Amino acid sequence: MELYQSTLEQITDLNRETMQAAWDRIDSLATPTRALGQLNNIAAQLAGIMGTPTPKIHKKCVIIMGGDHGIVDEGVSAYPQEITVAMMMVFTKGGAGINCLSNHVGSDVIVVDIGVKGDTSVFPGVIQRKIRPGTANMAIGPAMTREEAIAAIEVGIEMANQQIDAGYDLLATGDMGIGNTTPSSALLAAFTGLSPAEVAGRGTGVDDEGLKKKINAIAKSLEVNKPNPNDPVDVLSKVGGLEIAGLTGVILGAAAKKRPVIIDGFISSAAALVAAKISPLSVKYMIGSHCSAEQAHHIMLETIGLMPVLNLEMRLGEGTGAALTMPIVEAATKILTDMFTFQDLGVPC
Amino acid sequence: MELYQSTLEQITDLNRETMQAAWDRIDSLATPTRALGQLNNIAAQLAGIMGTPTPKIHKKCVIIMGGDHGIVDEGVSAYPQEITVAMMMVFTKGGAGINCLSNHVGSDVIVVDIGVKGDTSVFPGVIQRKIRPGTANMAIGPAMTREEAIAAIEVGIEMANQQIDAGYDLLATGDMGIGNTTPSSALLAAFTGLSPAEVAGRGTGVDDEGLKKKINAIAKSLEVNKPNPNDPVDVLSKVGGLEIAGLTGVILGAAAKKRPVIIDGFISSAAALVAAKISPLSVKYMIGSHCSAEQAHHIMLETIGLMPVLNLEMRLGEGTGAALTMPIVEAATKILTDMFTFQDLGVPC
Repeated sequence: MELYQSTLEQITDLNRETMQAAWDRIDSLATPTRALGQLNNIAAQLAGIMGTPTPKIHKKCVIIMGGDHGIVDEGVSAYPQEITVAMMMVFTKGGAGINCLSNHVGSDVIVVDIGVKGDTSVFPGVIQRKIRPGTANMAIGPAMTREEAIAAIEVGIEMANQQIDAGYDLLATGDMGIGNTTPSSALLAAFTGLSPAEVAGRGTGVDDEGLKKKINAIAKSLEVNKPNPNDPVDVLSKVGGLEIAGLTGVILGAAAKKRPVIIDGFISSAAALVAAKISPLSVKYMIGSHCSAEQAHHIMLETIGLMPVLNLEMRLGEGTGAALTMPIVEAATKILTDMFTFQDLGVPC
Repeated sequence: MELYQSTLEQITDLNRETMQAAWDRIDSLATPTRALGQLNNIAAQLAGIMGTPTPKIHKKCVIIMGGDHGIVDEGVSAYPQEITVAMMMVFTKGGAGINCLSNHVGSDVIVVDIGVKGDTSVFPGVIQRKIRPGTANMAIGPAMTREEAIAAIEVGIEMANQQIDAGYDLLATGDMGIGNTTPSSALLAAFTGLSPAEVAGRGTGVDDEGLKKKINAIAKSLEVNKPNPNDPVDVLSKVGGLEIAGLTGVILGAAAKKRPVIIDGFISSAAALVAAKISPLSVKYMIGSHCSAEQAHHIMLETIGLMPVLNLEMRLGEGTGAALTMPIVEAATKILTDMFTFQDLGVPC
């Protein structure tokens, strides 16, 4: 609770001077006015986050939080719960989508068991920070206690702190947890008042019957738990997930330590939504990645205020969309240092 | 004319067997079914283009074609024509947006003067293939002759051939030419029947007055020249541009030699549209990059049948959006070789 509080207190606005210096440079570049669009915006944002007009990225990592979900008892997922623990193994063996894409972009992968139902301690490399072995079935009662939610957020903050202290200056979020689009949708409904049918999608690929079960499960969870939208931790504990809470912590931790954090897909965005509700200033440290195939993701992104830069219709999670966004974020830093200005050219513009 | 004809004859369909082999691999991956979305599609496309289930990218380049436009006499651009030649210099000095982004992604930049009004021979590194020093004002008569258009296409084919023979296996298109959104819009109007107001955008940033002039210039060009939409080279010569024709050639050349080519922004897409009209099969060798801020770009992309993977609201040209797409194309090759299948895991899916 203490780490949580002190972290929130450390989240401040971006550095306006370094951000303005970046904009001045951008506005002098030998291009039509602001022709690099969102790349310019990211460049200026990074300058404001990192407190320098020429931000650099030296080391980057995806932090994957793994957790299970009691709500799978309601038949909301196309895949069995055992996949969560199996994929935690794959992450450590290097054969998952996120390993492939992280290697490709030169990022490391940090894997954290914050609430997997099975035992992951046998897989070397999984950081053991289990709060509890999966959430309770939120269609019957709260997914977890308020204390557990805060403890999970604090695990995320610690993970962010550790990586930043180790020299990582670009963080990204990733998730693993069979059933986790259901709490993500429930969080969106709880905060926005949208109906379960509006926020539910097909996740990893449920059929019409599965989608119906999912909508019912979200409806029951909201009805049974009555989460208070003005109390984000109440919402998170009642209809959220352990890995979602952990990722909320990663985001808040990054913001407190003034490092950019790329938000992956639907589940990571749910974590970002909770972070935004807890600390609106934390949004300024977030960078949108992709708009996934999950139907309510664009609503989630708009609610937070994030612009996705990739449109790949992916729906894998794990941080895969965030990893593919890393080269774009790095490109944004380079336009501030590696391009000529019109003044350099001596041409009349 | 001979190179043009022989190139068209060499463009065939993708290799169905290697493409199917790639899909079989994708469908066995340890992810929810086809969860990598467009990344899967690009992977299978590359397998079909390159004739192997495990395509690899070894060397990549952006081919920038530079040309000027007589239509600037109508006041259609926010920038003076001298910028074209100035930017050709910047490309060779390494200070342009495309230099910065190409370096970032490990791509080379090939700069071709196919129709700049000024002298670029003083800039070492600019390949001198000028067909004529800028097009004629298409609001008065044809932008160029049919012979010039074919000659420009053939320059593009030769450039693609040379780079592919030198080992480049991923090509991208880039453009430079003050005023070139106007012929690009005119081409779209000529092929689709859309009105000048529907296809015209603000280009590098014209004001309301400039936009009005642009719409009028497009209307006059279509009226004066009456391009025949069933004869793509007629359209290209009457309301196109030299760099656009050159890029059409690059695309056709890549398709003939079975190499993927990433299509940059609005001007490159206009070239791709001409290529698609000349050879519908060539579209199968194209990879969409970004949807630019130019208002009709999404219509252009839909008309060709290209899906943009980046949404950065850029409007610079030069190949910048294509360069940023290169790491995504490379990532697509890696999911075919660097990921586990469910069989590897021995889990029940």
